[in-house]
This record gives sequence, structure tokens and C-alpha cells, in this order.
Amino acid sequence: MRITEFRVTPIAFGDPPVRAAFGLHAPYALRTIVELVTDDGLSGVSETHGGAAVVADLEAIRELVLGRDPFQLASLEAQIWSSGARYGAPTTTPWEGKLSSPPRTFAAVEVACLDLIGKTTGRPVCDLLGGAVRERVPFSAYLFYKHAGAGGPFGFGPDPQATTGWPLARQQEALSAEALVSQAQAMCAEYGFQSLKLKAGVLPPDEEVRTIRLLREAFGPHTPLRIDPNTAWSLETSVRCGEQLAGLLEYYEDPVAGKEQMAELARRCPIPLATNMCCVSFADLPETIRLGSVQIILGDHHFWGGLRASVELARICRTWGIGMSMHSNSHLGISLAAMTHLAAAVPNLTYACDTHYPWQSEEIIVGGKWRFEGGSLTVPKGPGLGVELDREALARMHEQYLAAGLSHRDDELEMQKVEPGWRRMVPRW
Amino acid sequence: MRITEFRVTPIAFGDPPVRAAFGLHAPYALRTIVELVTDDGLSGVSETHGGAAVVADLEAIRELVLGRDPFQLASLEAQIWSSGARYGAPTTTPWEGKLSSPPRTFAAVEVACLDLIGKTTGRPVCDLLGGAVRERVPFSAYLFYKHAGAGGPFGFGPDPQATTGWPLARQQEALSAEALVSQAQAMCAEYGFQSLKLKAGVLPPDEEVRTIRLLREAFGPHTPLRIDPNTAWSLETSVRCGEQLAGLLEYYEDPVAGKEQMAELARRCPIPLATNMCCVSFADLPETIRLGSVQIILGDHHFWGGLRASVELARICRTWGIGMSMHSNSHLGISLAAMTHLAAAVPNLTYACDTHYPWQSEEIIVGGKWRFEGGSLTVPKGPGLGVELDREALARMHEQYLAAGLSHRDDELEMQKVEPGWRRMVPRW
Repeated sequence: MRITEFRVTPIAFGDPPVRAAFGLHAPYALRTIVELVTDDGLSGVSETHGGAAVVADLEAIRELVLGRDPFQLASLEAQIWSSGARYGAPTTTPWEGKLSSPPRTFAAVEVACLDLIGKTTGRPVCDLLGGAVRERVPFSAYLFYKHAGAGGPFGFGPDPQATTGWPLARQQEALSAEALVSQAQAMCAEYGFQSLKLKAGVLPPDEEVRTIRLLREAFGPHTPLRIDPNTAWSLETSVRCGEQLAGLLEYYEDPVAGKEQMAELARRCPIPLATNMCCVSFADLPETIRLGSVQIILGDHHFWGGLRASVELARICRTWGIGMSMHSNSHLGISLAAMTHLAAAVPNLTYACDTHYPWQSEEIIVGGKWRFEGGSLTVPKGPGLGVELDREALARMHEQYLAAGLSHRDDELEMQKVEPGWRRMVPRW
Repeated sequence: MRITEFRVTPIAFGDPPVRAAFGLHAPYALRTIVELVTDDGLSGVSETHGGAAVVADLEAIRELVLGRDPFQLASLEAQIWSSGARYGAPTTTPWEGKLSSPPRTFAAVEVACLDLIGKTTGRPVCDLLGGAVRERVPFSAYLFYKHAGAGGPFGFGPDPQATTGWPLARQQEALSAEALVSQAQAMCAEYGFQSLKLKAGVLPPDEEVRTIRLLREAFGPHTPLRIDPNTAWSLETSVRCGEQLAGLLEYYEDPVAGKEQMAELARRCPIPLATNMCCVSFADLPETIRLGSVQIILGDHHFWGGLRASVELARICRTWGIGMSMHSNSHLGISLAAMTHLAAAVPNLTYACDTHYPWQSEEIIVGGKWRFEGGSLTVPKGPGLGVELDREALARMHEQYLAAGLSHRDDELEMQKVEPGWRRMVPRW
């Protein structure tokens, strides 16, 4: 089995104007779809980050991919690293700009290869990772402060067809604690999520703490809650808010910037700390562990180097007694499939996974959107990832990419369109 | 695909009277052969440590194995751990007695499952571990001080059929530096090994240091040399010998006992330290790394929890900048196949692997002994491990196991037969 075609297609899909410490989501989110075709007629697919630099990174390894047997992954990874690592590419948010390109580039190909391997062996991808230890994967409700608007072609306006339930709630403004509770109730009514994550670092910290308190009141004492200020808080603010949030949170995600400050906060705060910002690569692990910066790492196969690397990360977390959760960017159903197979195979991924998926109304896989039951997804039992690319949707979203005119994610710029002169600040409070 | 048969066969094979700090090898070495048969008629095989406790551990998980799909490895591993870990079983040498049973028990089944998966997918086992990054795996010459004798039915006597070359040299006494050089020359003439490992902790340290010096003279300045006193040396002796050995060694393996003393030695000795004694499980890693006990870990899939766990260990070593080599016990060709596939797939396994294989004259695989070229083995390209069990040899070696009357390895007891009252001492010098 040899790879004969390597297709890299940048796409854009509608994304509502949600807020984070980085700024504001643009009307379109960017992703990249990778397709591999083999000489025996199989095709494998994956989804990764979006934008011009991601596409360029993938195009740069075309000759390493074509002609390759999809099982030969370790050599591909080594060749990508030796072909030149690039750090700090100005492709995405400041946070994502810290990611190194080789693991992301390799991961995009690795997942498509595992889809191929699954198809040629008749096995779901989770079986290529050691087999499923759970049949259903729980996800959390990802709550955002946001401006009014449905995103995509509607921008800050409502989608006229979305008039009830979560589709309506998704486009409504939510810039207060009370509005966030309504958002959470609508999302959970639709998806059945059993745990809640609040994207914070947007409103003054006291309002965000009040949001957690109201969520606790609305959802009762047993619903796990998380807050993620994305390093918008100072150490002192993080300590002070931590005192107020103690007993209310499952974990406290990246309130403060950097391994050193996270370690200092860990000493002064009774809540377990989590990160997908101060530890985003294997190279970050020795210092993170030595300093004791976090108790939980949010993995993400898209930038940790793929599904097998994520299983290896899970072994490291088990070995050092670090908990595991899963990070998400705006994504479609191919990423969700990969995340679900991975989560099924990792015994110590005991926290519900993050997903932006409810915020997206478009889909790129045949059969439309994944359906959640009780906040969980059933692990697909078919060969490979268990999803099929909708070529019509791919073509449409590629057209949207070209029309959107966005070469990279820039939440700060989008925010400046709403508030001229707005700048991301670390810390803001 | 379901496992319908699970055969566990203890075997014994002839082993010459080689010495180590633990004592003396018995005339027969013990191993255990695991066979899995599936409902579609495939069979997978593996080889692990020997003796009654190892067999009992495997028999204890019979119900977890039967009926299982061989791809479901993560759940099997978790079930074995939760069915009760046992540490310090009095089955083997003091060193091996520190090993925990769950990873060893799981590994024996995992390797046979990977053999099955390879066979059902038509792929060599290395392809199930990420693919080969090297086509040939180098091994080192494993040199032992020894008493005269061929082992097996000949005990301390010579095998009358082995009259020339390495088969003759293998049975000759070697209890001096000069005799070790002759042994090394005979072994390298036969196998072409490019690096040498001296099992030490047997003669007074000055004689062992002299052996290294003579090996350096005999094999020239570019042949990597290692010495392994198996914790028979005190810290002061290790420091003193380290000064004498500086510039002569590739690495210095377990001269002194325990993570703390190894860390202290690392501060006082210019030679990279290696271990397969103070760090033998994932649970050992945090302290080993925190203390800086070693620069090189000798992995061993038989007790680290299998081939996939060994790939995970390799990721940990890459992440923390620790080198990787591979440990060996007395073994036959099934273990050698698994070791070779693993070594082929691990990019950072850059040291030649240890193997006791030249010391064994019997074999349990069809086609007889593996053939080395230039000290290396070519990675098998056939499905699975690429070896087939010789059922006649299996039956014969099982008979030998029953006749030998050994329930576990006890090098101290064997040594006492030669030197009454001999005891292992840590340290001896």
C-alpha cells in the first residue's frame, strides 16, 4: 500500500462571534482537510488547524508523503523534524503561535494514515491505539461570552432559520453571568452535557466568578465546572479568584501565564490547575513537571504530534500522576472522530473532553452532524475514523475560505473591528 | 477475531556456567512460551521469563485472555493491574524479584497479540509500532567471566561435539582478563559484533578494570565498551574505577545500588551511567529523573509492559534527554524477534542491544538459530514476529523443564554448589 495522492484543502466555516482573552472569533473559522489516497484505492482523511502557514507546512512535506506506506509513521515524523522545525509562526493566536510546526504537520498526516490503516485492516482507529477502554466518550459544554450573531454569512446578525432552542440561543448575545447560565441551559438541553467549561478572561474577574456561582446554583452541586481565563489574570487575581472559586471548580485552567507563575499559583491555591497553554509539547514537560506547574494537562492530538503521541503523553501523565483532559479548537466532524477514538483508548483521560462542536452549524462529513447522547458520543465501530468526507461540503467550504480572505486566525484584529484599539493583555486584570 | 486457546508452557534450555554478581547460572535457563490461538485459526507466540511464579501469573489471567479480541490491549492491561499487582515475588534473582508482575504478565500476552495482529493484517510487528526506522538492528557482544562447561546436559563438562570456534570458546573457562579477551575475539569472529559489554561484579574490580583495558587494546580505540558490575561495587569503588575507566567506556552500567547512589556517582564520575536495575518500571521514572540517577536506560519489553509500553518509554527518554539501550536475559529466538522489531521501531534506541543469545545453543523456532551479520540482525519483513514455533523443540524443552526440577532462577544457590557459603553482597567491593 503506497500513498499516491496527497490533497490539502483549506476551508472556512461559519463561527459565531464568541469572545476569549485573545479577542473575538471571526465570522469564519479556518481549518485544513488532508486526504490521502493509496494505490489500492483507499482514502484516509484528517482535519487540522487552518490558514496559509498550516497549508504551506503540509505542502512542504509532499515528497515525504507521496509513495509512502502509511504504516511507516516513525520515519515520517523523524524526517519532518529533520526537514526543519519552525516555531512561533505568525499564523494564529499568540497562544497557537507558540506551537511548533513539526508535530502539527506530522499529526495531520498521521491521523489520515491511521484512517487508512483502519480501513485496510477493517478496524476502528481506537483499535490501532490499544483498543477502546470505554464505549462512550463524555464531552463538556463549552460556554462562551459572546456578542449577538450567528457568524458565517450572518456575521453579527441572526440566522433567520434558527428560531428555536440551541440554534437560537447560539446566536444570542451573552455578556453577563445570567446570560451565560441561559446559554448553558440551552446547550445542555440540546446535547445533554454533564460538565461545563466557561471560557473566561473576557469580563472583569468578579463577573466571571459570579458566572461560576450562578452556574453552580443552576446546575446543582454535582455538575463539574471549569473556568479558563487564558492567562488574562495576574497571579494575585488568580489567587484571589481561586479563594472564591475553591470548592466550586473541577479544575482551574490557565488563569496565569507561564510555568513559573502556574507553579507559584499551585502552591497558593487549593484548586487543581490545568493547562493547554504553558505545556503544549513534549519539550515543555520536563520543566512543567519539575516546577509542579499543573495537576492536569489538556492534550490535543492536533498539536501534540498525533494520536500515537497522545497515547504516549497519556503514559507520561499516568507515570507522574498528572490528570488528563482534552483541548479543543473550532472544528468539524473529522477532528471530532479522531478525538473520540483517542479518548476511547486512553484509560486515564478521565475528564470530559472540551469541544467547540456545538458552536458550528456546518459539517463536512456525510450524514451531517454527530449526535450526542447525554453529552457523550458513541465510539464508531466501523473501519478507520468511521467518517466519510462530504465532497460537496468540502468544495463549498473551500470556496468560503477563498471568499473570506483570511490567511490566519487573528482574534485581536476581529476584536478591534468592534472595539477600536483593543489589545490583548497578559495579564489584563 | 477471538482468542480461543491460551497455552502457557514452561521450558528449560542449556545455559553455560556464566558468572555475575548474583552468582552462577544453572545448567538450565528457564523461560515460558505463550501461545494464543484464535477462532479464525491464527496463532501468536511470545517468550518471557521462566519459572513457576511466572506461569502462575499467566494462568491467573486465563479468563481475561480467552474470548478476547487481540486488539483490545489497553483494557487487558488495566484488568491485569486491577486483578492485583504483586511485587517482590521470590521467583528470580534479587534484581528480578523487584519486578512487578502485572507489566511482565501483560507483556507476555501483548507480544503474542501483536504477533496475531501482524498475521491478520499481513504486517511485521515493527509496523504496528510505527514502522521501522532502521532495517538492521545492531547487538553487542555480551562477555561473561565463567567456569568451564557447556551447560545443559554437560554441566561443567564440555559438549563433545563443540570442538572449534565459538562453540568451543563458549564452554571454556574465563576467569581472567586475558581469558575474557579470547572469549570476546571468538564471539566477535562468529557474530561480527561491533560493541562489547562485560558482565562484571565477579572478579576483584582491579581485574575487571584490567579486562576493559585489554579489550580496548585488543579491539582498538573505536569499539564501544560497557561494563556492568550489577551493583557489586560501593560508591567509593565505583568512583575510583570510574576514574580509571574514563575515556574507555561508552557507558557504566549499575556499578552501585539504588537511585540515590547512582545520582551521587553521576556527580562524581565523567562516564555516562546506565541502568536496568534502579529504574525497571514506569513507577521508578519520576524519582530517577528528579535525582538525575542515569543518562541511559536499558529498556526490556519483557518487564516494562510490552512493546507498546517500550515505545512509550522511548518517548519519555527522548523527552528528558535520556539515552536508550536494551537489556537482555537468557533467551531464545522468539524474544529475539520481539526485541528486534522493537529496536527497529524506536528512533532513539541508538545503542547496540544486549543479548545473551550467543550463549544458547538450543532454539525453539523453525529454521534454527537467527544469523547475525556484522553483529546485526535484519528486521523480519513477514507478518507478525516472523518466527514459527518448533513444536518438537517446545516439547523437548518442556521435558527438560520438568526434568531440571528448577522452579525459579537462583544464581546464589548455584554458586554455593561451587563455593559453599557463597553469598551475594551489595556491595561486595
